[in-house]
Amino acid sequence: MSVEKRTKSIDLSHHLSELSKARATSPLKGLMKYFSQPGILALGGGLPSPAYFPVSDISANVLVPESFALAPIESSTSFTWLWKLFGSQNATKEKTQAVTIPKYTTVDGDINLASSLQYGAAIAQQQLQVFLKNFISEVYQPAFEDWTVLIDTGNTDGWSRAVTTLCNPGEGVLCEEWTYPSAIASMLPSNIKPVPVAMDGLGMKSDALENLLSQWDPVSRQMPRPHVMYIVPVGQNPSGSTMSVERKKQIYDICVKYDVIIVEDDPYYFLQLGDYTFKGDRSPGATASGKPSAEESKRYVSTLNPSFLNFDYQGRVIRLDTFSKTIAPGSRLGWFTCNPVFAERLERQGETSTQAPCGFGQAVITKILTHWTYDGYIRWLRGLRTEYQQRRNFFIDCLADEFHLNAVPAVAGVWQGCIAYEASSKVKKSTSMTEKYSTRNRTMFSFVPPVAGMFVWMKLHLDQHPSFTPGDEDTLETKLWTKLAENGVLFGPGWMFAANALDGDSENTNAGHFRISFSNVDLPDLKKAVTIFGRVVREFFEEEGL
Amino acid sequence: MSVEKRTKSIDLSHHLSELSKARATSPLKGLMKYFSQPGILALGGGLPSPAYFPVSDISANVLVPESFALAPIESSTSFTWLWKLFGSQNATKEKTQAVTIPKYTTVDGDINLASSLQYGAAIAQQQLQVFLKNFISEVYQPAFEDWTVLIDTGNTDGWSRAVTTLCNPGEGVLCEEWTYPSAIASMLPSNIKPVPVAMDGLGMKSDALENLLSQWDPVSRQMPRPHVMYIVPVGQNPSGSTMSVERKKQIYDICVKYDVIIVEDDPYYFLQLGDYTFKGDRSPGATASGKPSAEESKRYVSTLNPSFLNFDYQGRVIRLDTFSKTIAPGSRLGWFTCNPVFAERLERQGETSTQAPCGFGQAVITKILTHWTYDGYIRWLRGLRTEYQQRRNFFIDCLADEFHLNAVPAVAGVWQGCIAYEASSKVKKSTSMTEKYSTRNRTMFSFVPPVAGMFVWMKLHLDQHPSFTPGDEDTLETKLWTKLAENGVLFGPGWMFAANALDGDSENTNAGHFRISFSNVDLPDLKKAVTIFGRVVREFFEEEGL
Repeated sequence: MSVEKRTKSIDLSHHLSELSKARATSPLKGLMKYFSQPGILALGGGLPSPAYFPVSDISANVLVPESFALAPIESSTSFTWLWKLFGSQNATKEKTQAVTIPKYTTVDGDINLASSLQYGAAIAQQQLQVFLKNFISEVYQPAFEDWTVLIDTGNTDGWSRAVTTLCNPGEGVLCEEWTYPSAIASMLPSNIKPVPVAMDGLGMKSDALENLLSQWDPVSRQMPRPHVMYIVPVGQNPSGSTMSVERKKQIYDICVKYDVIIVEDDPYYFLQLGDYTFKGDRSPGATASGKPSAEESKRYVSTLNPSFLNFDYQGRVIRLDTFSKTIAPGSRLGWFTCNPVFAERLERQGETSTQAPCGFGQAVITKILTHWTYDGYIRWLRGLRTEYQQRRNFFIDCLADEFHLNAVPAVAGVWQGCIAYEASSKVKKSTSMTEKYSTRNRTMFSFVPPVAGMFVWMKLHLDQHPSFTPGDEDTLETKLWTKLAENGVLFGPGWMFAANALDGDSENTNAGHFRISFSNVDLPDLKKAVTIFGRVVREFFEEEGL
Repeated sequence: MSVEKRTKSIDLSHHLSELSKARATSPLKGLMKYFSQPGILALGGGLPSPAYFPVSDISANVLVPESFALAPIESSTSFTWLWKLFGSQNATKEKTQAVTIPKYTTVDGDINLASSLQYGAAIAQQQLQVFLKNFISEVYQPAFEDWTVLIDTGNTDGWSRAVTTLCNPGEGVLCEEWTYPSAIASMLPSNIKPVPVAMDGLGMKSDALENLLSQWDPVSRQMPRPHVMYIVPVGQNPSGSTMSVERKKQIYDICVKYDVIIVEDDPYYFLQLGDYTFKGDRSPGATASGKPSAEESKRYVSTLNPSFLNFDYQGRVIRLDTFSKTIAPGSRLGWFTCNPVFAERLERQGETSTQAPCGFGQAVITKILTHWTYDGYIRWLRGLRTEYQQRRNFFIDCLADEFHLNAVPAVAGVWQGCIAYEASSKVKKSTSMTEKYSTRNRTMFSFVPPVAGMFVWMKLHLDQHPSFTPGDEDTLETKLWTKLAENGVLFGPGWMFAANALDGDSENTNAGHFRISFSNVDLPDLKKAVTIFGRVVREFFEEEGL
């Protein structure tokens, strides 16, 4: 991942949309040099005095960076103790440290509310800017020199600003065939349409992308060849797929060849969970708490799947990062890493909409990060990774308890190249069970354990349903979804995530899908949900008629 | 201000823009009924567990609502003691009370970080919604029944969303001839143009509006008759004018007649400062601290200039409120009050851009408000009002110390109907002064003391400059602005605030302008700035050539 020689980004300003080009530069630009004169008496802006901010200080009890273990804690016989660990939200065993943000500070550069809660520049408060620049250098190591950081209110805002900065109405955006519905909802009203690219187990397929672009016919497609790509390369939403280094390089090179800007939406980057193995095959994990250290940070970062930025010698990647999954969704704080020309236009757009992100949030998050330091934050992220790893393992363990899972290599489709698990009924021997299950070895659903992210993407083998006729997929999917909901379990309906779902032109593949999130509910509830799902799905596949 | 009978809003959906109509309703809408089932196991959303939010609790020391006095504290001989009050930012005399927001609460409905920092609905967290609904009922008393509250990230976001929800490219928006530049910058790139309406001392002129609309010729104007108005009725930015009840009613009735939607941007509503009188004519103010009380809230609210909402029997007003001036700009929190059809479309737009405002900010602000209670917040607003009143008085007192001010009724232009103060040189007798001033009774500038807001709008009498020739206004204004900046004082350049400034088509009126903000710098610095301004402006008007 190391980069030998870096050069500046190339001129990519021809990608800017008409709307973006029409945004005026601040008419004050020529006068700016006066604004930062020391001792200047500034009576120009409509700023309230900080004396009128009604908070003298804000404090927080912050979890220590090593709050979560570095390896999953396994239990071979029961998960009762896990219930204890996760079941009670009022557990008081958290180890915390107090931090305080005063209204005024005597030390220049310290975080203070007088600045944080004032009108501020949209690029980020000074201390956050410094932290992020170091973080990006260490973790992503962009291959071009003049990358720029600009904060936003999270990746939804980030993508919304990116797409309006780059695309004109009537254009199309390359994306995975299954994708994040909000990303599509941001662009459709402006008549910017998704152009789905086929996926396999490593996400977007490079040969499919090459074919699509090389054979693009603007007339039959009724739009120019797309020059923007929206992609979620790690723990993809909803499929859970994660792109390999090799695939990323191929995709990047094709984007260079066809002059495509890559918008890398990467909220799950730090949830790289590794492979799943059955419970019985796992070695008991260590319980070392592991203090933060520079050496450990370096080592850990080197194990992470590189960002597109790491290959981006031209500056054609706009990377979207967010604190939503690593601190909290309510942070509404994220950032762009991109070339300075794009950054400047994205900043202008922010000035007339969100302005700078919330100062309360920026102050608290910056305080946490600077209190933890870079190595502490990496340690926090490693612990978080382990927590999600444990959750994923637990959830799939539950599926393995409930179903017979048969591992088979997938030869085609979205899981090509991966080992997929096909689920069929187990004959249960428990005397307490009143239901009888068919012993027929019918695959009801299949999935690939995700190596990153928060989701299991479940393919329903609806063609195995007794009353299946092709074309019924959406009806059957919704029927099962509704049965589950009536029994108290909510999954994400698969049809929502088709890139062209909102466009009313969805392809059928003999399969419905569910997106199941193992990220939030307590482990006992995860177990309970899988048990209910087991009963409902078996009943469903036994039904003879709709 | 009381409203006898209220009816529901009329159908105004024909005002929605094509972009807004094209926004999809969430495809999950039909399934929503399952989402709120008690005990539901929700594995659908991509929500992290609150166990992973790294803060156990957040605390703040909050100023008591009666922190600021209810009447200006006057000093007849010197302002040394004022320096003490305002000069030291580290003054520790603040009286505060501690509030804490825990991650988890045992009492249902209490503010907690587990909910506040989670993904949330854009309409507002429950407790804030309740507070705002009561606040709006008590203070604004809308004349239609089904008004709806929706939060946003402040009025810039509010206006940006309103204008894209209502206007198509190629349309125009009615606004005051001098207005807030960011409001214009939000719409120009989408080819939505300002349509300036003449002002007098009470803001937008109703006869000018009626004439403009009744005589609108779409062909010569090259746009359809505007159906949207952007207006800042209290402490107008930049002119400082405040609209009377009578004028508001006239404007509203014209908007009914011509079917115009009023977007009321009202950040300075609670800075209604009353009239300015010369220092010598003021009676010494009381220093009563005044505890919050329901009776006092009622009495005070009845003295406030009513919102357009108070006349809005049809639901054609979108009111924009913000905490930027009453809590802090970094709050990035405000709200729409409008009819439910507009609110739903504005919410859809928010979902694909900012999502809900920052949870840290929402939690802290909601905690402050519910801790203070409604009456406490009104008390806080009254104290704040008094502080700004004192600042305005002090600033104009400084001008009166520095210049000879001659009160004259303005008969035309933006101050028509008000008493304007014309400023000319004083002969100074101080032996410490090395400069000599002309005794010529030349008016260098004039202004009307604002009755609301943060700004003094200063009209420069550039035609009194020795080398003035018509057409020179912008050059002379910038020359004086630059001289001031070089001497360490920044004012807001007037040309920025012309509604058509960014459009490159500004009208000249023999005058340049400055917008001067008395809201932020300490009083000694305000004094210093006026002294420097005095010297620079006198030198400027003595210059014979450019």
